Amino acid sequence: MPKKIFFTPGPSALYFTVEEHLKHASRAQVMEINHRSKQAEGYYQEASDNLKSLMSIPDDYQVFFLSSATEIWERQLQNLVTKKSFHYCLGAFSNRFYDFAVKWGIKAEKVESPFGELPDTNPELIPKDVELITLPLNETSTGVSFPAEDIYNIRASHPDTLIAVDGVSALPVIDLDFSQVDSVYFSVQKCFGLPAGLGVWIVSPRAIKKAEEKLAAGYSIGAYQALPNLMKNGLKNQTTFTANVLNIFLLAKVTGDMLEKGIDVIRREANYKAALLNHLVENHPKLNHFVADRKLRSKTVTVANTTEGSAEILEKLSKKGFVLGNGYGNHKGKQIRIASFPTHSKEQMELLVDVINSTI
Amino acid sequence: MPKKIFFTPGPSALYFTVEEHLKHASRAQVMEINHRSKQAEGYYQEASDNLKSLMSIPDDYQVFFLSSATEIWERQLQNLVTKKSFHYCLGAFSNRFYDFAVKWGIKAEKVESPFGELPDTNPELIPKDVELITLPLNETSTGVSFPAEDIYNIRASHPDTLIAVDGVSALPVIDLDFSQVDSVYFSVQKCFGLPAGLGVWIVSPRAIKKAEEKLAAGYSIGAYQALPNLMKNGLKNQTTFTANVLNIFLLAKVTGDMLEKGIDVIRREANYKAALLNHLVENHPKLNHFVADRKLRSKTVTVANTTEGSAEILEKLSKKGFVLGNGYGNHKGKQIRIASFPTHSKEQMELLVDVINSTI
Repeated sequence: MPKKIFFTPGPSALYFTVEEHLKHASRAQVMEINHRSKQAEGYYQEASDNLKSLMSIPDDYQVFFLSSATEIWERQLQNLVTKKSFHYCLGAFSNRFYDFAVKWGIKAEKVESPFGELPDTNPELIPKDVELITLPLNETSTGVSFPAEDIYNIRASHPDTLIAVDGVSALPVIDLDFSQVDSVYFSVQKCFGLPAGLGVWIVSPRAIKKAEEKLAAGYSIGAYQALPNLMKNGLKNQTTFTANVLNIFLLAKVTGDMLEKGIDVIRREANYKAALLNHLVENHPKLNHFVADRKLRSKTVTVANTTEGSAEILEKLSKKGFVLGNGYGNHKGKQIRIASFPTHSKEQMELLVDVINSTI
Repeated sequence: MPKKIFFTPGPSALYFTVEEHLKHASRAQVMEINHRSKQAEGYYQEASDNLKSLMSIPDDYQVFFLSSATEIWERQLQNLVTKKSFHYCLGAFSNRFYDFAVKWGIKAEKVESPFGELPDTNPELIPKDVELITLPLNETSTGVSFPAEDIYNIRASHPDTLIAVDGVSALPVIDLDFSQVDSVYFSVQKCFGLPAGLGVWIVSPRAIKKAEEKLAAGYSIGAYQALPNLMKNGLKNQTTFTANVLNIFLLAKVTGDMLEKGIDVIRREANYKAALLNHLVENHPKLNHFVADRKLRSKTVTVANTTEGSAEILEKLSKKGFVLGNGYGNHKGKQIRIASFPTHSKEQMELLVDVINSTI
């Protein structure tokens, strides 16, 4: 049976070089080596260095490997908040981060928008006493992007408050000035095109200091995933637990491939592919944009309402070998979501558009 | 370059069928499917069913997939302890679980032994008011096993207290009566012969009830890894986050292979291989047993003191293609540790013994 192409917004298609790297991993016995061996440390360093080059991350930021972005929500609350956090909530995932804060007993505030829209990003709505401001660079459930300029405005108004950015379905496609935020995180099964099972957490010196201060003030910041412990291990290019070494290896290799291609090319192609998809949704009689404001439409996840439901569309396309995402939560059966990640070539996207036009 | 054989006590040699299953995973696009798809749910169920068959786990126990045994230490403390825990500490790993409890602000007590020995397991040493008793079935850092009969004695004396068993380098080789304990956990990169990046947590109905009671009493039990949430998802054969689907698939397949081979055969072979290693250590002029009491010697991890240091031994053997474990912590450079896991065949172990005898 020929393989299907996954245009799902995570897990998604593997980066097109992963299969080759898996063979290399097997030859190099990457799945058998000790996670504290020189060989494993080398992969950690390579992945960290490549990520920093690819996204122009400041030298004094640290890259840590955890198990998932979901875990990193929790670790940020444990490490970076003593009393109060503030959350931009614009879809299922950004709301879930807020819910985590509530469950961990933090005094969490939020500003919320209907799905498909962006909350009011006026920085004056943020109380002065919050310790952490959280937002998604791209809300995967709705296809709304959070403009980077709005983040920089928030920073200018609240220069002493930590800002956490969920980059999960946006990075490395979206250009983010890391020096203006303190905590950036993502899972690797979306834009990076890797198998699920690894979370990447990039942390500023200010964030590490905050965790140290919280601990010094007598609060618990956890055990093995406390930032000082992550730091102690990270400086040796080691994880704090027996992590998914295979995925760290694959991330090192795939980010190397992305560097070779060039981030500018990746971003240019993303613009082209997003334009193709936007044109499709605008002109197809059975589709229309969920995100009304075109300035807010994600470049990596296009979400369309369907006039006749999405189940049949998704099934027909799957039979032809194209797997698209369903609507999320309440929108399941009503919307389709199409990922346009670095692994998806311009040609694949053109083909997808043709197939959608001829199929539905 | 020919591949080396890893006799390290985790990460260790892959189960000998993993390479074939990886090819199958690639064909079936296991690394691209949605973690909440029917296909992924099928792998969850298959892995859970196989684990239950393989180790005779009671039907009403639940199998959950997390990121590592390290994470599960923390989740047990968050879910199963309100005030007080009790820990048998006999090496680096069992001590680290105790340390986690302290860091999370729990009133933790312990009974400790020098490395290479077993603490006094007289159940009368356990205070009546502890909520959780923790112990390793096998302390990977020292090669000391905790006799199952001692666990059953503790259960008989403290029938209402939850017992947590670290099975990480013992299961499925060691026969454990799961009905006498409440929480059993392991990472898959040791006895199960899989790549690192998955923790398995097997939980009794009593443990789930305890988490519900803690929550009802007004305490936080966490967010996505709270047992009621694990349960809600687990009943649908779903994880609580985008987990390492590839490893769940591989676990399903490898446990299937183990069932086909038969747990009795696996255990018989383990006895034979352990006898070989014990005979080697007893008779080799440059090696002697770290665990003096032969009844306590692990069947899966043999630890030997070296008369002339371990660095040269390990290097010589590695050059011949045999990778053994170094001593742990303070014993690094002084000891060797040899894993004898289900993937290691009798023939490989005989060959290893011959090579050690002819090399050092």
